[in-house]
Amino acid sequence: MVITFLTDFGLSDDFVGVCRGVIKRIAPEVEVIDITHGIPAQSVLQGALVLANTIQYMPEGVHLAVVDPGVGGARRALALRSSDGRLFVGPDNGLLVPAAEACGGVSEAHELTNPAYALPSVSRTFHGRDLFSPAAAHLALGVALGELGPPIDPETLVRLNLPQPDVGERRIRATVLYVDSFGNIQLNLTRDHLERIGIIPGTTVELALGPDRYFAVAARTFGDARTGDLILYEDSYRNVAIAINQGSAGDLLGARPNQELRINLDV
Amino acid sequence: MVITFLTDFGLSDDFVGVCRGVIKRIAPEVEVIDITHGIPAQSVLQGALVLANTIQYMPEGVHLAVVDPGVGGARRALALRSSDGRLFVGPDNGLLVPAAEACGGVSEAHELTNPAYALPSVSRTFHGRDLFSPAAAHLALGVALGELGPPIDPETLVRLNLPQPDVGERRIRATVLYVDSFGNIQLNLTRDHLERIGIIPGTTVELALGPDRYFAVAARTFGDARTGDLILYEDSYRNVAIAINQGSAGDLLGARPNQELRINLDV
Amino acid sequence: MVITFLTDFGLSDDFVGVCRGVIKRIAPEVEVIDITHGIPAQSVLQGALVLANTIQYMPEGVHLAVVDPGVGGARRALALRSSDGRLFVGPDNGLLVPAAEACGGVSEAHELTNPAYALPSVSRTFHGRDLFSPAAAHLALGVALGELGPPIDPETLVRLNLPQPDVGERRIRATVLYVDSFGNIQLNLTRDHLERIGIIPGTTVELALGPDRYFAVAARTFGDARTGDLILYEDSYRNVAIAINQGSAGDLLGARPNQELRINLDV
Repeated sequence: MVITFLTDFGLSDDFVGVCRGVIKRIAPEVEVIDITHGIPAQSVLQGALVLANTIQYMPEGVHLAVVDPGVGGARRALALRSSDGRLFVGPDNGLLVPAAEACGGVSEAHELTNPAYALPSVSRTFHGRDLFSPAAAHLALGVALGELGPPIDPETLVRLNLPQPDVGERRIRATVLYVDSFGNIQLNLTRDHLERIGIIPGTTVELALGPDRYFAVAARTFGDARTGDLILYEDSYRNVAIAINQGSAGDLLGARPNQELRINLDV
Repeated sequence: MVITFLTDFGLSDDFVGVCRGVIKRIAPEVEVIDITHGIPAQSVLQGALVLANTIQYMPEGVHLAVVDPGVGGARRALALRSSDGRLFVGPDNGLLVPAAEACGGVSEAHELTNPAYALPSVSRTFHGRDLFSPAAAHLALGVALGELGPPIDPETLVRLNLPQPDVGERRIRATVLYVDSFGNIQLNLTRDHLERIGIIPGTTVELALGPDRYFAVAARTFGDARTGDLILYEDSYRNVAIAINQGSAGDLLGARPNQELRINLDV
Repeated sequence: MVITFLTDFGLSDDFVGVCRGVIKRIAPEVEVIDITHGIPAQSVLQGALVLANTIQYMPEGVHLAVVDPGVGGARRALALRSSDGRLFVGPDNGLLVPAAEACGGVSEAHELTNPAYALPSVSRTFHGRDLFSPAAAHLALGVALGELGPPIDPETLVRLNLPQPDVGERRIRATVLYVDSFGNIQLNLTRDHLERIGIIPGTTVELALGPDRYFAVAARTFGDARTGDLILYEDSYRNVAIAINQGSAGDLLGARPNQELRINLDV
């Protein structure tokens, strides 16, 4: 059994290492696979999107995710089972739900309340270490989901509002979901949205971000554009993204998650 | 047997990867757990504090730590055993001692001088790779501590001066130990120091850092404060720290390790 | 069997984690050792140098490397065997060749064309996930190199132009290869180049980088210089490098890869 691990902890502190130590003390034979610890601090939506995008590439196992601005408050701590049998552990703030839905939906949910599967002392500020990592380790050892605490009606789980695009006649209002470290800007669009207004590889469009305007061309891959040209392409997770061949579109446009970005056909 | 691994090497270069390769060539079955490689460059004190804080969460094994500004000079290379049976490997500059003391004290110390347990060629600048990693790997394989080199009197080990707080009638002079990547500012204080001058959850205090003054409120957890308020709280390692609910106190205060920070009750 | 893994993906996104998931789904027992994921984005030369420098410290296995600005274009995807029996997987852009040559040369090369050893759908922008990671995982499981695709004449592999130094009577024109996170500046020189013009430990030289001039002293290790002094030394990979004792030479000089740096004896 493997545990995959996604957080906003970063790697400059000991947070990830300590969670890993906690897991290994409980379940020495379990392997931990880091999905990423680079989710922007407290960005639950970005964490949820990355987990949902990547889950299909991960071995089945326990999927531990912690982006938890509400730690120490009233938010519940969860363990879920998806319809295809994967297990998810993390806070009840919407982080886990899109990934579980990508795995067939939430078939069972429990609140983490059984102290037998937490550290002896649970701090108010680091549930990743004290509550979620031990629960994930015990699940990986084969503890039954129902042992961790009482069942929760899946309908009552906190869900995120995923921003929806507005597709007009000749323009799309989209939202920036993510800017990766190469500067690629991921939008809340699929190729289908582009095609609905007639954008296909080769089409030139205008991008509008705040007061700024840019030309871009729809393309199949980076190599279809000249160095320095902005392209609009379907990325490897089948989302529409903006990139510059051998440059950083994120830096050029100054794009940030949650910003509105308009795509206009009238250029 | 596991090896835990803490350094100031960062993850942008190959230093950590090469040490891991060296360990795996000697001890293929040994698992390496990274505590962190984000200790600020050459910050022995910060490395020692993180190792001492986290050791209790790590499986028992060999604890390899390298923050080594004196590499290539006269400082000794060490392997230690703590009273509870853990093994520590690293430079004799104080880095290992607080963690070994958290594990009952140093019961045995040896200098790494036996070339049979180092790489064939030991460079002057990268003992992490050439000396410490091989020693840790051989210890993890079961080589006896005494095989690595002659015993050292534990009394002669280099020890760090841990900054001590000055607790007055209505104010505390503290020192910034660490600023984590969430911007939480860890001080050299425990809750007991605060209580000695009457600071309990709900108390408002003034923080003085250089010429700047801030209000903060003592709190149990982030959720007890409004977004943007500074709080003084007991962190998950039972140190007193300063945070902003959903913000970076480190950025706001511009705090740096080793700075003096005063807490005043007269506000 | 182990897979070593080197990329320019960074660790702030999920790219590395997803590749690791893909490998683990195919080859659950295989261990992945990260050499580094901090190669500067799309810097094939720096990636090739780091792989060639570090390969001798890695267990024999499959060596997966992805720095791939030409993804989605016409560049071939490769699996190589070196004369000492190591296997290499990555793009045909020169990245793998210096490491394979450090291992005795390329004895066999194949193009990755067999869809049985790739993911069912290969994107145009993420061959690390869809093509290279699956190929490495299958090789680690024991699949024969020739199964992955047709043989390639090793003479036709893309090779990098490694910058060569120009050694004069009393000066050397060198090139900056790399600046590590400690600020050490690695040059395309060995100790032999320095000795040819009479630079030995203790010799004072002038460094010229663009319009700027600096004094430096040749030294055996950091400790031979005063704090703040620039030194010229043989680094742990036996390249000549520039450092400041307890400081960042990279920051002081503002050095960047591929810049010319002159070393003058007439100071």
